[in-house]
Amino acid sequence: MDLASIDPGSTPDFTGKKRDGEDELFKNGDEFAELQEKLFAESRFGGTRSVLLVLQAMDTAGKGGIVDHVLGLANPQGIQAFSFKAPTDEEKAHDFLWRIRKRLPEAGHIGVFDRSHYEDVLIHRVRGFSTPEAIDERYGLINEFEASLVASGTTIVKVMLHISPEEQKARLADRLDDPTKNWKYNPGDVDERALWADYMQAYEIAIERTSTEVAPWHVVPADHKWYARLAVQRLLLDALRSLDLQWPAADYDVEAEKARLAAS
Amino acid sequence: MDLASIDPGSTPDFTGKKRDGEDELFKNGDEFAELQEKLFAESRFGGTRSVLLVLQAMDTAGKGGIVDHVLGLANPQGIQAFSFKAPTDEEKAHDFLWRIRKRLPEAGHIGVFDRSHYEDVLIHRVRGFSTPEAIDERYGLINEFEASLVASGTTIVKVMLHISPEEQKARLADRLDDPTKNWKYNPGDVDERALWADYMQAYEIAIERTSTEVAPWHVVPADHKWYARLAVQRLLLDALRSLDLQWPAADYDVEAEKARLAAS
Repeated sequence: MDLASIDPGSTPDFTGKKRDGEDELFKNGDEFAELQEKLFAESRFGGTRSVLLVLQAMDTAGKGGIVDHVLGLANPQGIQAFSFKAPTDEEKAHDFLWRIRKRLPEAGHIGVFDRSHYEDVLIHRVRGFSTPEAIDERYGLINEFEASLVASGTTIVKVMLHISPEEQKARLADRLDDPTKNWKYNPGDVDERALWADYMQAYEIAIERTSTEVAPWHVVPADHKWYARLAVQRLLLDALRSLDLQWPAADYDVEAEKARLAAS
Repeated sequence: MDLASIDPGSTPDFTGKKRDGEDELFKNGDEFAELQEKLFAESRFGGTRSVLLVLQAMDTAGKGGIVDHVLGLANPQGIQAFSFKAPTDEEKAHDFLWRIRKRLPEAGHIGVFDRSHYEDVLIHRVRGFSTPEAIDERYGLINEFEASLVASGTTIVKVMLHISPEEQKARLADRLDDPTKNWKYNPGDVDERALWADYMQAYEIAIERTSTEVAPWHVVPADHKWYARLAVQRLLLDALRSLDLQWPAADYDVEAEKARLAAS
């Protein structure tokens, strides 16, 4: 796994321009919304399947924009998005997966994790918040946890949004220049930025050790926001299509009900 | 409170046609999304305010469509929608507000209840699931509960979508005619429909007894889906505007950070 070999400014499997990408994103919206509704409908008849999108990235890579522009094309009733922050004291008093388990999507829903249990092998490695032994153990714990989720009917889509340090600099500058975006900037962002190479190494190790057959990682070039959104939408569409979702069949006599309704 | 005096086919405070209503809904979307993001931003800086939309209605009145077409205009990250079904055995083992409290919106979010604690004074009254004394007590418990929520920073918007039995009949027929909608139909819907007058009376009593200054009810004519969506959007916009939301100011030295970033 060598992130340096993937150009953050590239647009794999897409030959069009920004406008073409935006058009495809919008055009796919109906299918995405319909598949999500089918998943929801299935859960109303005892189905227990769900989808979980895990988003990890350096700051400003566009996680929030993915939630808005990709997941925003489905009915919010079927979306359960959650943004993990630095753990609270209560969360720290438990194992690192405790807070994650509480936020898993319910049957019929698409869950989105903006940051996730991977923080515990990323910033923890770079900042030394945990011992190397503890971090080393976590890769295995994560793989077991995810395999268990998949076995229970959750399709996991893991995405690393891959931006360049130059693009991040431009986006951070924009947050400083625009008073309506000042709240999104944190002085700590520049501190983390100084550790870029360490983060890339932590990502490479995490991706290598937790990219499993049942829950592989996808590295999505993200210097072009429009491309990253389209690429994540395609991954979600693939995941949903693979479920072979069907509208639940009537479990009642349709003609008899038509007569009852007409008489009502 | 006399629901019969409100025409479900009317469009109060709106003189345009369907297309005009849809245009306004779309046009208002940007402001709605921005206000929601400001609420979210506030919560990142210690703000604890939230908004809760409570939707109650007869079947087919369009609750799901409100979530999709109105709340769907904001970033799903800021929306927490939940649909209450018949209570589980675990839920029945607790007081009727127990399951409600677990689904309240977090700070910075707009919560949506598709059905709610009002089921316990609506279907419970019509179907006799609880004693008259228990139901009578619940109006007061609801008012105290909601007053406490409001005092804690939650703005509550309570909406009854008001449709006519004729329009419901047409919508139920559509669910029977369209195989992709069969799953939305339940034979029990016709049973409830037979009790229309009882339900209207239960709504009238509930609205009278729980329309408080801090959490008033709004009866929205809903035979025209486009109108109901616009009316609910306007109520949410009013609620959000009344919060006088501001983008959080930088709590750091913007110029100093620009210099640090440039040097990074």
